[in-house]
Amino acid sequence: MNAEIIAVGSELLLGQITNTNARFISGQLSELGINVYYHTVVGDNDERLVKAIEIAESRADLIIFSGGLGPTKDDLTKETIARHLGTLLETDDFAMQSIEEFFALQNRVMTENNRKQALVLKDCEVLVNRHGMAPGMLLEKNNRMYMLLPGPPKELEPMFQYEAKPKLAARVLDGAQIISHVLRFYGIGEAELEVKVQDLLDNQTNPTIAPLASDGEVTLRVTAKALSIEEAWQLIDETKDEIIRRVGQFMYGVNDDSLSSKTAEILIENDLTISAAESLTAGLFQSELAENPGISRVLVGGVVTYTEQAKREQLGISADLLEKHGVVSSECAAAMASKVKGKFGTDIGVSLTGAAGPEGHADQPAGTVWIGVCIGEHEPQTYQLHLTGQRNTNRLRAVKRTFAFIIQLLTEQGYRKI
Amino acid sequence: MNAEIIAVGSELLLGQITNTNARFISGQLSELGINVYYHTVVGDNDERLVKAIEIAESRADLIIFSGGLGPTKDDLTKETIARHLGTLLETDDFAMQSIEEFFALQNRVMTENNRKQALVLKDCEVLVNRHGMAPGMLLEKNNRMYMLLPGPPKELEPMFQYEAKPKLAARVLDGAQIISHVLRFYGIGEAELEVKVQDLLDNQTNPTIAPLASDGEVTLRVTAKALSIEEAWQLIDETKDEIIRRVGQFMYGVNDDSLSSKTAEILIENDLTISAAESLTAGLFQSELAENPGISRVLVGGVVTYTEQAKREQLGISADLLEKHGVVSSECAAAMASKVKGKFGTDIGVSLTGAAGPEGHADQPAGTVWIGVCIGEHEPQTYQLHLTGQRNTNRLRAVKRTFAFIIQLLTEQGYRKI
Repeated sequence: MNAEIIAVGSELLLGQITNTNARFISGQLSELGINVYYHTVVGDNDERLVKAIEIAESRADLIIFSGGLGPTKDDLTKETIARHLGTLLETDDFAMQSIEEFFALQNRVMTENNRKQALVLKDCEVLVNRHGMAPGMLLEKNNRMYMLLPGPPKELEPMFQYEAKPKLAARVLDGAQIISHVLRFYGIGEAELEVKVQDLLDNQTNPTIAPLASDGEVTLRVTAKALSIEEAWQLIDETKDEIIRRVGQFMYGVNDDSLSSKTAEILIENDLTISAAESLTAGLFQSELAENPGISRVLVGGVVTYTEQAKREQLGISADLLEKHGVVSSECAAAMASKVKGKFGTDIGVSLTGAAGPEGHADQPAGTVWIGVCIGEHEPQTYQLHLTGQRNTNRLRAVKRTFAFIIQLLTEQGYRKI
Repeated sequence: MNAEIIAVGSELLLGQITNTNARFISGQLSELGINVYYHTVVGDNDERLVKAIEIAESRADLIIFSGGLGPTKDDLTKETIARHLGTLLETDDFAMQSIEEFFALQNRVMTENNRKQALVLKDCEVLVNRHGMAPGMLLEKNNRMYMLLPGPPKELEPMFQYEAKPKLAARVLDGAQIISHVLRFYGIGEAELEVKVQDLLDNQTNPTIAPLASDGEVTLRVTAKALSIEEAWQLIDETKDEIIRRVGQFMYGVNDDSLSSKTAEILIENDLTISAAESLTAGLFQSELAENPGISRVLVGGVVTYTEQAKREQLGISADLLEKHGVVSSECAAAMASKVKGKFGTDIGVSLTGAAGPEGHADQPAGTVWIGVCIGEHEPQTYQLHLTGQRNTNRLRAVKRTFAFIIQLLTEQGYRKI
């Protein structure tokens, strides 16, 4: 089966929004083993939409539309498709009821044009919209499948995942089950990782293994197909165990984990409180850590010491140390981590000092960063980075590496099992 | 003239990356008054790319390709186009020289396949790539224009803006000049803004005025066309003056300004040093302020006091105040701003305290936030927010509003002229 995704909306052609729906749907279809050969974007224009449909029909078995299901006269996707296929639109009672309830709940009067949203293609399977009003549709006609989804990603994504995907899976998998599991690595390059699992990549059939690199991280997506969920998981687990045996020390998490969420998880599980002293990152490390719900149990606080004076006065870094080693040094990072830990009375103290760029700082070239981490009674550990990106990219990368360094040290000290 | 944008790359069809290039190019073309009727995405496949080109030729005068200009065998855009148009590829000396210099600079040996990047379509205008190796191309053939751009946005965006756009402008504007100027507003809703400039919107011809709302901000894009740059600017200035007369108090900047960059600009211009005490935002305010180059002249530092204990111990907020008013209160915000200002010896102290969600905090519902700003000898000013988003959206919005509040107060105190 091969698919084409048609996004409908003039705002896409004017450059006002990005077509994130096509990316989302493509990723989902790839998990099902459905090939996507083309994406198309067309405006809110009946004639041009018909032409796009005709072209898609000449090259795809599954055509997925996003957008144009709303109440206004610009929204014309289902009307155009109905006319093109010579079929009718009829009111879906469940959708109509949901729309009426939505307005009642909000204490708002429903204008007549909202009834249009409950119209669906005759004989289609209705895809329930749990995050908005317009239902989705799946219609089989002339040996081809037409799927209509609403434009807002907040409605489209859950509808695809929970309503549409199982229906597609049932068709393409013929009773089989398919499961994807993403392994996340940090601190190893894509090329190096591939070398270590090359034979697994070369001989993959089921599960399949797909590597992907982005922004310092590498992931391996392991996808298994079997007659039952249990069997699929067993296939994944066997492959995962083998991968961990080879490169487990670089694996920090799975699926939606991030370096920040994994750090938060280990801290919370072990009741380890944390504080930080930040220079070039100016609060970015603490802010990213604070994105994780439940963090208030372990994040006490910290300081931003952007100037040398602030490092002396707020943290008590000695003028002597600064004179001797400079602010961008292992010694300064170690002292900052240790001092902030003492000042805030936490189990862990973290520090970042360096030159984000574009200029260098304290005799050090732009991109030189020192990270310090002080855990319990252990000596502070430091880590040096040489970054080559732009100012804000460097700041983000330094924070990412800090999370990875903390995870590494906590793993070494037995707070986390791989 | 109407255009189609064809993005080439299998990673787009696999859902690994989003087609942000199509959005960028569309926005740029719309400024030139060039209509975009379709976007297409196709994989690294010669046969399917040819079909996409044939379809585009049947419906567009200008076809813009992004991606597939690199050194690997997957990169086939220019080879496919050359064959399709029956033209040749030849080495561009300037591009070849740049590529050789790139490798020499990096002390790396150039592999032979990199020579492929210097090949361009015969008789094309070469678009110089100042941020990468593969040059772009503009070719006119059979009354149609073909533009080839590299895939990485960091290369494509400046190449389009500085190399391609002037060439397109010269063709479509027929000697005329077109200038766009974006006015940025905060603290006024889109509907309210539109009401105040409704007659200008209704009667617009030249300049045109296009409103756009996103994430709490509203912008008006004013676009003028005239026979000279001076004349175009005069048209823009007249309209801008009239808009400022009506809603100038909500306008914080123009074009690429952000609330953060505008704050940094005013601080640096007036040599005003700043520090911050953050609770729910945990360093996000300071981190966003630090994104602006040159900020080290005014940003001294600050504290993150995530827990109540940290507020007492690190800032010296009295137990009495916390008992009486709670941490989520105007009194606490005012005290935090004033204390951090004293502690860091800055001209301005800023504070944020509140409940980001999902739970409420200190008897206050989730989304309640107090901002405090203390300038010089003035009494601390506070501002309350009731946010309704998710945890991290609320933290971002609180920071945005803090920048707007600082700009407002500095404007009132004469540090900035509208």
